[in-house]
Amino acid sequence: MSRVRVHNFSVSLDGFGTGDGQSLEAPFGHAGHRLHEWFFPTRTFRAFHETTGDQGGGSGVDDAFARNWSSGIGAEIMGRGKFGPQHGSWADEEWHGWWGDNPPFHTPVFVLTHHHRASIEMEGGTTFHFIDLSPAEAVSIARESAGGLDVRIGGGPSTIRQFLAANLIDYMHIVIVPIVLGRGERLWDGLEGLDQRFDVESVSSPSGVTHVTFTRR
Amino acid sequence: MSRVRVHNFSVSLDGFGTGDGQSLEAPFGHAGHRLHEWFFPTRTFRAFHETTGDQGGGSGVDDAFARNWSSGIGAEIMGRGKFGPQHGSWADEEWHGWWGDNPPFHTPVFVLTHHHRASIEMEGGTTFHFIDLSPAEAVSIARESAGGLDVRIGGGPSTIRQFLAANLIDYMHIVIVPIVLGRGERLWDGLEGLDQRFDVESVSSPSGVTHVTFTRR
Repeated sequence: MSRVRVHNFSVSLDGFGTGDGQSLEAPFGHAGHRLHEWFFPTRTFRAFHETTGDQGGGSGVDDAFARNWSSGIGAEIMGRGKFGPQHGSWADEEWHGWWGDNPPFHTPVFVLTHHHRASIEMEGGTTFHFIDLSPAEAVSIARESAGGLDVRIGGGPSTIRQFLAANLIDYMHIVIVPIVLGRGERLWDGLEGLDQRFDVESVSSPSGVTHVTFTRR
Repeated sequence: MSRVRVHNFSVSLDGFGTGDGQSLEAPFGHAGHRLHEWFFPTRTFRAFHETTGDQGGGSGVDDAFARNWSSGIGAEIMGRGKFGPQHGSWADEEWHGWWGDNPPFHTPVFVLTHHHRASIEMEGGTTFHFIDLSPAEAVSIARESAGGLDVRIGGGPSTIRQFLAANLIDYMHIVIVPIVLGRGERLWDGLEGLDQRFDVESVSSPSGVTHVTFTRR
């Protein structure tokens, strides 16, 4: 059975998955890179945009988790804010999102938006589809396109929160970064008792973060 | 130099240090015992209210942290909610708080309240003093009575938050419990950038919690 998974999703001690003030230059707002500093030194990240050769990087617990991100995934669903900072109808269709010409997804990617836009086929197997659907409908259409593989929910915080609230997530890997952001978008709001639906494990890393996994009971 | 320390302070993934609806029967409101289940099996907790004999209990990482709670402490400062659930002027002076005839503190304890009350001398060396002072003034008076030892800030969340905001805390041990409480009193609110004043370390425990220590730079 195809599962719905979340990977490498970082939150601050106060539960923010992104900072305040997202813009083209600052995808995570005032959080800057601080939520993802654990990720950059991993072998997985170093190899992300490269196709040949050994790019180095750490291969400890951070990398072990990071590496699972793509394994067995056939499609991603993301909120519009993970594609780009625009709001409302699509004014600039020339700009194809934050992810470059060859995005790291290499699968169909379903972007949740209330505003119609034609699909965009990128290099390397990524195709962005823009859909105006409920979480359950989105999982259904992503699953169809995933060819029997799993579906990843890519974020941001409000997108993951909606799929958790709808009880659609089977596995979730959260990274607690020991910083206090103070403002931004919270992951955990409205999810009282969430832990009771999951087996939860935690492991801290020498990098300072703690990996917390939720496996649906 | 006498330091100001926080120990064994548990918060949920969403940052709540106590649940909603504190009452005489439910000191942590709807959180019940869930924030402190890591603590009960430790040797430190088992020995808490006993004076003789081996009470058993675990002596792993949870106990190692728990044990530091009393070491080198000469006084505690606590919010009124940690003494009892009353609000406003003291209606019932016969009731001497949640901590029994022989409270586990065995030092002077300064309870922050805007309402005057005479000090109460308990068995075992604990004396409750009721003070209407700012955080800095409270530290000053507690330090005097601590005879050169350290001062512990005992909670609850809003009390610790105030002392952090006033930059009065030298060491803080927080326990992240992987539950989502959804409501209650948050520890981290209004403390943006707090981590930049501290060296932060995290270690997860087989019990499922993660111990995070903050040591002032």
